[in-house]
Amino acid sequence: MKQYKPAPWLCWQPTSIEHNHCNFVTFVSNIKSMSSFPVHTDPIIALATPSGVGAIAVIRISGNGCIALVGDFFIPKNKKKNLRSQPSHTVHLGHIAEGPRLIDEVLVSVFKNPHSYTGEDVVEIACHGSVYIQQEIIQLFLKNGVRLATAGEFTLRAFLNGKLDLSQAEAVADLIASDSEASHRIAMQQMRGGFSNEIADLRGQLMNFAALIELELDFSEEDVEFADRAEFRKLIHKIIALLKRLIDSFALGNVIKNGIPIAIVGEPNVGKSTLLNTLLNEEKAIVSHIAGTTRDAIEDDLVIGGITFRFIDTAGIRDTQDIIETVGIKKTFEKIQQAQLVMYLVDASSLEAASPETFSTEIIKIEILYPNKKILVVLNKADLLSSEKLTAVLQNFQTLSHPVIALSAKEKTGLHLLTEHLQGLLNTGALSNNQTIVSNVRHFEALHHALKAAVEVEKGLEKHISSDLIAIDVRQALFHLGEITGEVTNDDLLGHIFANFCIGK
Amino acid sequence: MKQYKPAPWLCWQPTSIEHNHCNFVTFVSNIKSMSSFPVHTDPIIALATPSGVGAIAVIRISGNGCIALVGDFFIPKNKKKNLRSQPSHTVHLGHIAEGPRLIDEVLVSVFKNPHSYTGEDVVEIACHGSVYIQQEIIQLFLKNGVRLATAGEFTLRAFLNGKLDLSQAEAVADLIASDSEASHRIAMQQMRGGFSNEIADLRGQLMNFAALIELELDFSEEDVEFADRAEFRKLIHKIIALLKRLIDSFALGNVIKNGIPIAIVGEPNVGKSTLLNTLLNEEKAIVSHIAGTTRDAIEDDLVIGGITFRFIDTAGIRDTQDIIETVGIKKTFEKIQQAQLVMYLVDASSLEAASPETFSTEIIKIEILYPNKKILVVLNKADLLSSEKLTAVLQNFQTLSHPVIALSAKEKTGLHLLTEHLQGLLNTGALSNNQTIVSNVRHFEALHHALKAAVEVEKGLEKHISSDLIAIDVRQALFHLGEITGEVTNDDLLGHIFANFCIGK
Repeated sequence: MKQYKPAPWLCWQPTSIEHNHCNFVTFVSNIKSMSSFPVHTDPIIALATPSGVGAIAVIRISGNGCIALVGDFFIPKNKKKNLRSQPSHTVHLGHIAEGPRLIDEVLVSVFKNPHSYTGEDVVEIACHGSVYIQQEIIQLFLKNGVRLATAGEFTLRAFLNGKLDLSQAEAVADLIASDSEASHRIAMQQMRGGFSNEIADLRGQLMNFAALIELELDFSEEDVEFADRAEFRKLIHKIIALLKRLIDSFALGNVIKNGIPIAIVGEPNVGKSTLLNTLLNEEKAIVSHIAGTTRDAIEDDLVIGGITFRFIDTAGIRDTQDIIETVGIKKTFEKIQQAQLVMYLVDASSLEAASPETFSTEIIKIEILYPNKKILVVLNKADLLSSEKLTAVLQNFQTLSHPVIALSAKEKTGLHLLTEHLQGLLNTGALSNNQTIVSNVRHFEALHHALKAAVEVEKGLEKHISSDLIAIDVRQALFHLGEITGEVTNDDLLGHIFANFCIGK
Repeated sequence: MKQYKPAPWLCWQPTSIEHNHCNFVTFVSNIKSMSSFPVHTDPIIALATPSGVGAIAVIRISGNGCIALVGDFFIPKNKKKNLRSQPSHTVHLGHIAEGPRLIDEVLVSVFKNPHSYTGEDVVEIACHGSVYIQQEIIQLFLKNGVRLATAGEFTLRAFLNGKLDLSQAEAVADLIASDSEASHRIAMQQMRGGFSNEIADLRGQLMNFAALIELELDFSEEDVEFADRAEFRKLIHKIIALLKRLIDSFALGNVIKNGIPIAIVGEPNVGKSTLLNTLLNEEKAIVSHIAGTTRDAIEDDLVIGGITFRFIDTAGIRDTQDIIETVGIKKTFEKIQQAQLVMYLVDASSLEAASPETFSTEIIKIEILYPNKKILVVLNKADLLSSEKLTAVLQNFQTLSHPVIALSAKEKTGLHLLTEHLQGLLNTGALSNNQTIVSNVRHFEALHHALKAAVEVEKGLEKHISSDLIAIDVRQALFHLGEITGEVTNDDLLGHIFANFCIGK
């Protein structure tokens, strides 16, 4: 299988040409014109639909000559049709055949470059959804000069042909993986380019200043200032503000993408597993009246109000001699460390006489071990208390510094209090205002590096330091901003990004 | 959900109008014109591709007004495009949106009636293959007047709109389920109408004679013969010959569709499980040196030369006190009963001194219990014998009335002898000659009934019995032939056939 090879100049690292100003300006203008990028165009094939049996399956072929090639094995229903001469974006009924042997009746869709997903000629074959037929058709073309696409290769080609920028390409993978309204919205926004447009716009403005600054260096003996320092400072402020906002949004974006971990903890037999089962609406965890039933930490996802929460049921915290249970309790503390919120469950029925102090020791233990954890106290088995008693108990708990709610996991009452509290955890204002949210660790890191460089530029401008020193930081900022959209990239990075795709995309 | 309702006359059973000749002729001509059949045309939707995550997924919508409806939620990339006014068989890039909320970037294919799979207007939406997105799009249309398609409803509509006859519609389901070259070929041939064309052609000819015979009944007092008895007899001979050939082909068709069961039997520890694992190329059965390791009958399929074989590893046959093993041995005999071939394994290394008589007792036992079973004697562990010894042993075995081969399951030698023997089991001549093969039990039964009636007609003609008696059998034959292609059908039958489809087809 051939390997994608980038042009040598794309492997450029900013440190390597720090003292070569003219080359840098050439480079900067070069990387803006992606069209000169060398692209592999040999035809590739893959199953595009999920594997397995269905009514239909779609096989995608992209690359030079693929329309003519499919035409060689396609017998159109309308005998006069020649696949080669059909216009783009048309669909044709006929048979895929290998010599006299008909493999299947199919619908063939033709897309002509550049008006296709990859920007190349593309043929999509919709066949009957038998695994045997899917394989036969793919085998047929593999025998005839088409090779199997690697993971993400169709999208890689779309990127290399300038149909998508890098962050949009990454959004395609996120979109396919999206499993909640919020994660879908972020991916959708990123794929539409909202994110990269903001970055690319500021980067373009910064590039103009960079060029002027580089020019100053060429005339350094004459001590001129081509770049208006006041304007430059204004732009840098704007860039820093945007970068900070985007970096801040990552906290939200990341939990939306990966789910918000919530640890369910508490003494044995307060109903932790029952609460998990009630929330998930299935018998996920084994429930019994025997204290210490749960040993492994049991996890599952639940989407509440479009956000994915990852609930972790833990072994009850108590002193025990049982070795397996001890391991479970050790795990509990690990899980608490990972969680964004600790739901501390209390058996409300055991509080009839007792005061909050009887259990606050445990909470204090958690507070000491994990000082920055948010804790929600949940009084479970509230159905076993009279409503007067429950009111009294809840009032008692107001003295604690943590929010308190009462519910019954078994009777499924009061659960709305819990979901409301969970939804309140996130400042989802950014989400509903359609603001750009960063959810990709790679982007987060690039933004961090860009911010660091931008802050250095700002400092330099304030201190009126010389152009050549400012130029270094400007280049760094440009480089890291370019990394996000793919205007600056390298082989390893592309390989890494597209390897995470599924085959067929 | 609305239920499909056939016209009342379609529920006609031949017995009910036996003495109402004029009505029958009207009926016969009616059922030829399927176009008058009432069809539900409300828009239906379903996921057409396999469920799960993939690069893309295809959602299919069929029915009245579906193009305009999808157009209401489709924002084309090229703003000027109006989905309604696009020609059939074209593909359009854009977004599916619910108000301001973009759900996904999609490719929408438009098919206009009657040039679509169902014969109605059809829209296929190719979206990103996230389960969340698939559901959101389906939900969107469910909220807007489209209902979820029932299993096979798209193909049912294709049948009701005359795009496919019933046996072709059934072939669609077979095609999707096909998992070997042979089952695929039969389904493909049936879908192309090879089978129904033969039936429909003969049925048409028989119908002409039926009309003439019915006419004779109207002039019964005048004792005329409109139907040429010699010609009629010739036609009936032809029909009987075809029916017999098709019925015979079912034996092959059925095993091709469902696999050929082969029981692997023999004394404990002769290597039955090892042979199964070697054939399947995986560790399916647990293998040990302890006699009686296998208790449950372990089955799996293997495709050899395009035919699916179902291998059944059985517990070793021996006298034992182990209760679980006894149950296993009882099962072995059940499995032998189901098998088309019994592979009787012998440990060749144990035969150094012994004569065939030492084990032929067991074979005789199997022969007595199942007198009509084909038996293949397999000398396993042949690698442990010198080639001279092996030749001698094989010669010894020629005295048995069963074919014998030698191989080593462990060393994977001699396996080609086994696969060659298995392939020789079937007279696959019909398959390679592209002859019509019946693989559907429903067709097999209808053919049987039609043959019975045709034979009665033949007898009647030979005995020169009166037209009214012959007419009864002719009607029966017409009815059963019509059942195959769906020219005669009823609600229950259609419900039964299409319920076996997957949703989305």
